[in-house]
Amino acid sequence: MNCNLAVIKGDGIGPEIVTEAMRVLDAVGEKYGHTFSYTQILMGGASIDVHGEPLTEEALEIAKNSDAVLMGSIGGNTSTSPWYKLPAQLRPEAGLLKLRKALGLFANIRPAYLYDELKKACPLRDEVIGDGFDMVIMRELTGGLYFGERHTEEVNGVRTAVDTLSYNENEIRRIAIKAFDIARKRKKHVISVDKANVLDSSRLWRAVVEEVAKDYEDVTYEHMLVDNCAMQLVNNPRQFDVILTENMFGDILSDEASMITGSIGMLSSASLAEGKFGLYEPSHGSAPDIAGQDIANPIATILSAAMMLRYSFDLDKEADEIEAAVKAVLADGYRTVDIMSDGMKKVGCKEMGQLIIDKI
Amino acid sequence: MNCNLAVIKGDGIGPEIVTEAMRVLDAVGEKYGHTFSYTQILMGGASIDVHGEPLTEEALEIAKNSDAVLMGSIGGNTSTSPWYKLPAQLRPEAGLLKLRKALGLFANIRPAYLYDELKKACPLRDEVIGDGFDMVIMRELTGGLYFGERHTEEVNGVRTAVDTLSYNENEIRRIAIKAFDIARKRKKHVISVDKANVLDSSRLWRAVVEEVAKDYEDVTYEHMLVDNCAMQLVNNPRQFDVILTENMFGDILSDEASMITGSIGMLSSASLAEGKFGLYEPSHGSAPDIAGQDIANPIATILSAAMMLRYSFDLDKEADEIEAAVKAVLADGYRTVDIMSDGMKKVGCKEMGQLIIDKI
Ligand SMILES: CC(C)[C@H](C(=O)O)[C@@H](O)C(=O)O
Ligand SMILES: CC(C)[C@H](C(=O)O)[C@@H](O)C(=O)O
Repeated sequence: MNCNLAVIKGDGIGPEIVTEAMRVLDAVGEKYGHTFSYTQILMGGASIDVHGEPLTEEALEIAKNSDAVLMGSIGGNTSTSPWYKLPAQLRPEAGLLKLRKALGLFANIRPAYLYDELKKACPLRDEVIGDGFDMVIMRELTGGLYFGERHTEEVNGVRTAVDTLSYNENEIRRIAIKAFDIARKRKKHVISVDKANVLDSSRLWRAVVEEVAKDYEDVTYEHMLVDNCAMQLVNNPRQFDVILTENMFGDILSDEASMITGSIGMLSSASLAEGKFGLYEPSHGSAPDIAGQDIANPIATILSAAMMLRYSFDLDKEADEIEAAVKAVLADGYRTVDIMSDGMKKVGCKEMGQLIIDKI
Repeated sequence: MNCNLAVIKGDGIGPEIVTEAMRVLDAVGEKYGHTFSYTQILMGGASIDVHGEPLTEEALEIAKNSDAVLMGSIGGNTSTSPWYKLPAQLRPEAGLLKLRKALGLFANIRPAYLYDELKKACPLRDEVIGDGFDMVIMRELTGGLYFGERHTEEVNGVRTAVDTLSYNENEIRRIAIKAFDIARKRKKHVISVDKANVLDSSRLWRAVVEEVAKDYEDVTYEHMLVDNCAMQLVNNPRQFDVILTENMFGDILSDEASMITGSIGMLSSASLAEGKFGLYEPSHGSAPDIAGQDIANPIATILSAAMMLRYSFDLDKEADEIEAAVKAVLADGYRTVDIMSDGMKKVGCKEMGQLIIDKI
């Protein structure tokens, strides 16, 4: 198979971790007879530095014409980086939002699970962890407050800012269908999260989720209020299989869920469009403080590449192989500094990549 | 002093826990020569059952004419209770939102801290807890998505729902001032939480917080994105002193923070208007599943009554006395079932109330 990838190395540790993911893809390609061709494009701070804007039309065109996008992480230190002196629409994050919208990446899939080997890194007590947890957050990614009309104006001399949270039933239905589809391949349980006791958009969300649920008699579901969900993630993460929610709630809850695993450096994510197209990136940020030191953990990005093989190219066997290689390296006791613990062998970013490649 | 209180016993465990708080107030009144007079009003499900609406104008008038409001908790099981078959504006929660707005309760103060005696109930590992944490969440309570224009309509046959998130600088300034004032009496650190990389309302929030901060040179502050804050609460709760944030973010983060203590049955809250007026209620909900069994924990409500003495009546000594009584009873090993652990003495709601009264 020939896979034509657009690659956004990004800012901070982005270039290091993406390089390792590309090397892993090449190893898989060699073993199974696939070719990955990479076209690098700039986005975020790296693009601002060269073009004065976070995503050019040319870069966007290349992404659109690719089969899938592999991405590192973007952005810098918001207090110290000059990128954050720019007007909002020229900052690194604006490039990401523009890309999501232009590519129609409405479904953000973020798994959050506990690696047996990394249990000790989990901030929750052993009694809360029990025999572990394994959930997927399905976050709507191109609607809601992120893409609503917004403005700031003076009303009788008083500065007033307005953002708009809007959803229509089609936007809700397509992400709900994705969530129920994924639940069907997992533990068959969806928890849809909203604030239906306050928001009209949440009440519509609830109604449409109930309509979609009718087509999935084998999947159980329930509704949960967002404030309660923020509590339940800490209190009893084991109750979750698939969490389905809107853009802003998903932003908050998926980060909370990642942190609860204690190993955010291990967590991948996929942002999918209709059809097979998707963008794949680690759940963590660009960690500018440790950039360029060869100590970043490339595993989240490598696992994102595995998700890409699975979702965009139907290469399940190849994806399994990458995931198994990661598990095997952990079982051998190798750790990057973020997941280091007593008695383990500390390795850098490149070395971790190489160890995973050696298992393939 | 004569204190004229409006009392909302509410739904579920509300009546039991409020009764104990009133008994504690009476005990303090007797000792220090204050009179508390109580006018009960209905709100939430209890009001729907009698009047067909969650808050009548008469009840609201009584609340307005009181010196402070003491409240239990409202609402029922959203899946099974008939209250949730009603149109949104007639459900229990609508009464609470109407009350908050009509009374101008713009500042919700929710302390979240770890009782030394209850460390084992905290879901976080001992290493994360360290020597404990003690924070206050200052949530703006009468603006944002909760009170913006909203509607649901068909646009070309497609159901579409819209909610509006609006803030003006005055709304932001007054809550920011409260937060910095409170920080000044504590560890002098404010973390203001927003989503300034996406929302206009958050960018205005940030700007106004920076203006207010200029008047508090003795208080340090920083900005934190809401998704990061949801992570940091789990990862390192010790870094927080005062968290300042808007309505919806505050709803989510304050519940997360409560759950992290592991003893939400102990956490009080105050919702303040300009001046001395306030409404005081526990942080937890109405727990309909355990209502009427005399097993609910009245401590959060009793501590809310203590907050009332402190904030609405400047009775600091009396508030201290209640808080000390609660600590003493815990130190004696008495626990309600929600905070029970090995070797402790299990007591019911009434008995817990009486034990606290006995210490006064
Ligand atoms: C960078 C930011 C705009 C983005 C978001 O909030 O969506 C990030 O936090 C994420 O979750 O991917
Ligand atoms: C009942 C509900 C409307 C309310 C809110 O979201 O404000 C509650 O969750 C709270 O936090 O007091």
